[in-house]
Amino acid sequence: MKLPPGFQAAAVHCGLQKAGTLDLGLIVAETACPATVMFTRNLLKGAHIPVCRNHLRRSHNMVRAVLVNAGNANCATGAAGEEDARHLCRSLAELLACPEEQVLCMSTGVIGKRLPVAKIQDALPALTDALSVDGLEDFATSILTTDTCTKTAHDTATAEDGTAVQVCGIAKGSGMIHPDLATMLVFLLTDGRSTKNLNLILRSIADDSFHCMTVDGDTSPNDTILLWSREAHWVRPVLESDALDDALLKVCQDLSRQIAADGEGAARLVTVQVRGAGSAVDAAHVGRFIATSPLVKTAIHGLDPNWGRILSAACTAGVTIEVERLRVWIGEAELYSQGEPHPENEAAASQHLRENKEVVVGVDLGAGPYDADVWTCDLSADYVGINAHYRS
Amino acid sequence: MKLPPGFQAAAVHCGLQKAGTLDLGLIVAETACPATVMFTRNLLKGAHIPVCRNHLRRSHNMVRAVLVNAGNANCATGAAGEEDARHLCRSLAELLACPEEQVLCMSTGVIGKRLPVAKIQDALPALTDALSVDGLEDFATSILTTDTCTKTAHDTATAEDGTAVQVCGIAKGSGMIHPDLATMLVFLLTDGRSTKNLNLILRSIADDSFHCMTVDGDTSPNDTILLWSREAHWVRPVLESDALDDALLKVCQDLSRQIAADGEGAARLVTVQVRGAGSAVDAAHVGRFIATSPLVKTAIHGLDPNWGRILSAACTAGVTIEVERLRVWIGEAELYSQGEPHPENEAAASQHLRENKEVVVGVDLGAGPYDADVWTCDLSADYVGINAHYRS
Repeated sequence: MKLPPGFQAAAVHCGLQKAGTLDLGLIVAETACPATVMFTRNLLKGAHIPVCRNHLRRSHNMVRAVLVNAGNANCATGAAGEEDARHLCRSLAELLACPEEQVLCMSTGVIGKRLPVAKIQDALPALTDALSVDGLEDFATSILTTDTCTKTAHDTATAEDGTAVQVCGIAKGSGMIHPDLATMLVFLLTDGRSTKNLNLILRSIADDSFHCMTVDGDTSPNDTILLWSREAHWVRPVLESDALDDALLKVCQDLSRQIAADGEGAARLVTVQVRGAGSAVDAAHVGRFIATSPLVKTAIHGLDPNWGRILSAACTAGVTIEVERLRVWIGEAELYSQGEPHPENEAAASQHLRENKEVVVGVDLGAGPYDADVWTCDLSADYVGINAHYRS
Repeated sequence: MKLPPGFQAAAVHCGLQKAGTLDLGLIVAETACPATVMFTRNLLKGAHIPVCRNHLRRSHNMVRAVLVNAGNANCATGAAGEEDARHLCRSLAELLACPEEQVLCMSTGVIGKRLPVAKIQDALPALTDALSVDGLEDFATSILTTDTCTKTAHDTATAEDGTAVQVCGIAKGSGMIHPDLATMLVFLLTDGRSTKNLNLILRSIADDSFHCMTVDGDTSPNDTILLWSREAHWVRPVLESDALDDALLKVCQDLSRQIAADGEGAARLVTVQVRGAGSAVDAAHVGRFIATSPLVKTAIHGLDPNWGRILSAACTAGVTIEVERLRVWIGEAELYSQGEPHPENEAAASQHLRENKEVVVGVDLGAGPYDADVWTCDLSADYVGINAHYRS
């Protein structure tokens, strides 16, 4: 997979993660380009967040470069942590000969430890030297923490002149939650240009992708999604914007499923289908409730078609539900309807869990026309091991 | 520990759990006595719940006997399941020669399987024959599922004539959640009598005890709390009711802590202290949010004083918090205050986790005078094992 025209990327080892591991990444645009960023809703925020907000305000959302380190979240580090982030942006800006407010930075890793600024700063010249149009995979690798694989996605949309524009997505995250809650980072790059407000596009797309995905419902203080559009419309004419939206949504949904599938300790990607809800909000809410139930997720891990737990989770979501109208299924097998269990279908449900890496569980609420799909993963003993012993 | 005067209990093996295990329990009052019952808020409800509600309405809350089976929740079993529960109450009422509406029943175990009514019915004569004033321990044993120990508590209060009245509590539950979500059952028996409304007393006491306890936030469809007061005031004069309330609260908090400590797979009882909240609701909400965070609970399991996760969980609770005013501690060790970490205290925090079976983590929100304590347990790989492989 390639970066869209106009972007370069690179990564190096600077000493934050174990030797030989890429732990510092960089993406640079040929010229400053319009970007929009969504940050975590956690009231605790990584130090990069106020710094990025300030830079975006001063640059009128024009971004030249994004620096990302793994291994340290630079979070709950006080005023000193913010100064560390600012200092790194300033150093990189000098190397790139651009205003410091056109540089953003992001961090992921352990909470509450000062960033080793000198190590990162020393690595910046080698990092900028390594910039390449082929740097996508290195960058995608450098931002990982407990992830077991890189997460990238790609799509194309057709511009007005008939040529293709690229949409490229890179993410890290073993779910919404992570060791020390740090972090889901997403980078969306395109050489296309939308006539719509980038921020509104991103919020709408995130609602239908990243917000439909959970590992266990936590929200990291460092979660950040960047949409960066190379508005070089002398190269790429203004795009029929729905086509670009569609490509962005496809990339974001693809990344969301990759993140859920790589949830810490996970063996299976689980799609929770909610059908027949009375509102879109109800549908998403019930879906998230089922997708965060440790009992549902441990049962799937144990390949147990334990539909009673799905039913019970749906019925505690706080949404008005008539239990007698509910239907519950696993795979294609209907296990509960009209108030009665269907034990004759449990063998088929069991087979579905056993034979697929991507499994489906669903409920129909019988209350209206609204649907939602929520992606999650099973809950394994490995999840506990990863999170019990991450820091120590 | 003894039952209060006027109550007898017994248990037998009827074949729902493995051979040799007590799995059918009974408590009988000398005469029908006033009772009040709180049922789960889950919209999915075990079949015993509509049957008990109906019986309590018809008997004007006078209860003679309570029959409890473990191993099968009789939940999501449709109209047939309710008829099964009614049938058992009727059979027991015949044996005790009392109206059927004075008999209650409760079930705990797997969801979605019909109750083997014949097995239970066949065991009823032996069960009533075994009734004894010394039956408390057998009864407490018979209602267990994945619990590793019985849970009982006792206190006394002084009646107006200076004699002591007894408050006795028996519970089962490895937390609020259980295999197949079934179940927390609590039985509170007293030979005292309150002048207050029993139902209001029970709700207020539950708010300050069972509702302050969680294993992972799920609510079983079968959760039931029974308060049964032997209103034989010709034997025990009307009590100064605050003394009875205090004894009941003490018993319920004791049981809550026992349930949290015996959470599935748990090695530690965790008390989450919330201080300085702007309202009682905020205090309890932040406490529950921290107490249900898998990241906080896995860190405690790993003996890692990972205060960043506590801080982050508090900041995602949806309560308005000024992060700079927060304080976080583990044991006696303050780890974060005024926006800054205190790494010099981590060794003391680590020692607190290592050396205690009952550990304390806390946050002060710096927003007002309201406090809450919430009890939970650590999250271990054993929890996953128990819940992944329970049914299969």
